[in-house]
Amino acid sequence: MDRIAVKTNILKDNQQAAAENRRLFEQEGTVVINLMSAPGAGKTTLLEATLRNMRDRERVAVIEGDLQTDLDAERIRALGVRSRQITTGNVCHLDARMIARAIAVFPIQGLDLLIIENVGNLICPASYGLGEDFRVVIASATEGAEKPKKYPVMFNKADVVLLNKADLAAPSGVDLAELERNVREVNPKAVTIALSCRTGEGLNLWIDWLQEAIASRKTASVGA
Amino acid sequence: MDRIAVKTNILKDNQQAAAENRRLFEQEGTVVINLMSAPGAGKTTLLEATLRNMRDRERVAVIEGDLQTDLDAERIRALGVRSRQITTGNVCHLDARMIARAIAVFPIQGLDLLIIENVGNLICPASYGLGEDFRVVIASATEGAEKPKKYPVMFNKADVVLLNKADLAAPSGVDLAELERNVREVNPKAVTIALSCRTGEGLNLWIDWLQEAIASRKTASVGA
Repeated sequence: MDRIAVKTNILKDNQQAAAENRRLFEQEGTVVINLMSAPGAGKTTLLEATLRNMRDRERVAVIEGDLQTDLDAERIRALGVRSRQITTGNVCHLDARMIARAIAVFPIQGLDLLIIENVGNLICPASYGLGEDFRVVIASATEGAEKPKKYPVMFNKADVVLLNKADLAAPSGVDLAELERNVREVNPKAVTIALSCRTGEGLNLWIDWLQEAIASRKTASVGA
Repeated sequence: MDRIAVKTNILKDNQQAAAENRRLFEQEGTVVINLMSAPGAGKTTLLEATLRNMRDRERVAVIEGDLQTDLDAERIRALGVRSRQITTGNVCHLDARMIARAIAVFPIQGLDLLIIENVGNLICPASYGLGEDFRVVIASATEGAEKPKKYPVMFNKADVVLLNKADLAAPSGVDLAELERNVREVNPKAVTIALSCRTGEGLNLWIDWLQEAIASRKTASVGA
């Protein structure tokens, strides 16, 4: 079997596993987010801010992906929220089978919201669906305005793009409006929200978006 | 052939191609740097500052790696420095064969210094040697202090770790000394230099390091 055939098989296997995950998530009425970004764009800090706001209102849990360490899962547990760490070793992305193995021992029964924080990487995770409802990509203002053009696959598949560290745009010499234009050029349909976890700016818009996603799922379940 | 065998073969092929690149580089007396970091850590901005300083003193050229766009190669050419863009499409790293194909049409004869800017990714490029003399990894202060622990393979193989955007450490709430301690924990041998391309802080230390690498190579060539 040659390299391309092996890669095609890996992606096909992943699609099947993702479809099975999706079936389980839908059965529970759980909204599932696949949260992706470059290293250090602020995924875990955003999660902390999000969970502080939502933890008393919704049944929520988190799966964390990293090469090494369970630092992130511990940060989430410190907030009193259930969390499971997947360490991938050398693997540069989460895949659907890793998620299937995780939820086999980390029950999702009755969850309103499951957020999966992917490995910090703007390339490889884009190719591996996990069975999620929404792909949320964080672009940090400190990374510069041109990242959507350089990593088009990741941004093209995003449902939501969060323009994080908005408060550091000016000190970094980055034009947030240009970053947003570059997101739209690659993906005109994505919802974009500028925010900062340090100042709190824009966080309410993100929380509103999440609450609406949960509310829509609950309405759909009642209707079904 | 199973997946692991395919991966093993890919890495073995790469090692052979890297050895052949290295032979060519040594023959020319060219010092070759493999510059790696997460997206947006400041690789190209560092290159611009470096080249402005060195372009009149040393014969230097740049190979740029990105998934898409030749924005970076154009930034380098705007400084009057020779530059070649490799666009990898979906491939998340440069490999030695890509470099071999590039230098077949982008002559390295007589170069003192060739800097290869890898694809923005803190994981995959670590596994693919290019035939370089030195691996230089940029950790941006804005990414947080814990990145060396989370991406140990990349930091463990680095010869030099540049702690970039040092001026944004305080506004980002990041302790630069903690970042440096975490680098040392993963890799006690790496040279670490804190710098900022915006303020110019620490740039002289980085330029000195480069000049010394070039001088050592020239001395070795004369001795040979």
